[in-house]
Amino acid sequence: MVDGVEGLDRVFQALADSTRRELVERLVRGPAAVSELAGPFAVSLSAVMQHLQVLQDCGLVRSEKHGRVRTCRLEPAGLRAAQEWLGAQRTDWEHRLDRLGGFLTDDPAGPDPGSTA
Amino acid sequence: MVDGVEGLDRVFQALADSTRRELVERLVRGPAAVSELAGPFAVSLSAVMQHLQVLQDCGLVRSEKHGRVRTCRLEPAGLRAAQEWLGAQRTDWEHRLDRLGGFLTDDPAGPDPGSTA
Repeated sequence: MVDGVEGLDRVFQALADSTRRELVERLVRGPAAVSELAGPFAVSLSAVMQHLQVLQDCGLVRSEKHGRVRTCRLEPAGLRAAQEWLGAQRTDWEHRLDRLGGFLTDDPAGPDPGSTA
Repeated sequence: MVDGVEGLDRVFQALADSTRRELVERLVRGPAAVSELAGPFAVSLSAVMQHLQVLQDCGLVRSEKHGRVRTCRLEPAGLRAAQEWLGAQRTDWEHRLDRLGGFLTDDPAGPDPGSTA
């Protein structure tokens, strides 16, 4: 679960590491065993497991153990919450630019007084 | 400037704090003096200045001093880079769900052999 302000703190914190972002990029394509996730990385299995723990703690990843295999899957709610916050900033920013654009296009002096009959 | 992987690390790190996100939310609406930015917060001016420094270090905010007034403004490239990374994950995720949906809708056994004349 990604609830409120603290949840967003933890999601952004989790995404502030390139190895964790690569793990998310992999899990976006489908669930994977921990050993499979660790494969492409130069870091140790235990380092990858620590990164996965951070992703689980903030709710971005869920894992289940079947026999000796632990499988991880993405929980997209956290990514969605982060994207929505960023999207809201972009919308506000673009509205501001639209208003600025309107201000620069409008003639600040109003209609030319000389044009009145 | 927000360049590459490390730039994205620092932007996400900067956004992993609710006070810094509130500063960004304010600056999205337009430039502001440091004293004006600090006004709404219960934390000290020096704490706000430290948060602004983090936002400047990762390129999300730029500041200029005129006389005794330091004015901050948003540099939206970092927000855009973060949003693009999240957007790419969402696109990949939705493609995967589409493929899964297609797989579940398709009849895996193909056309019913009994229907051939």
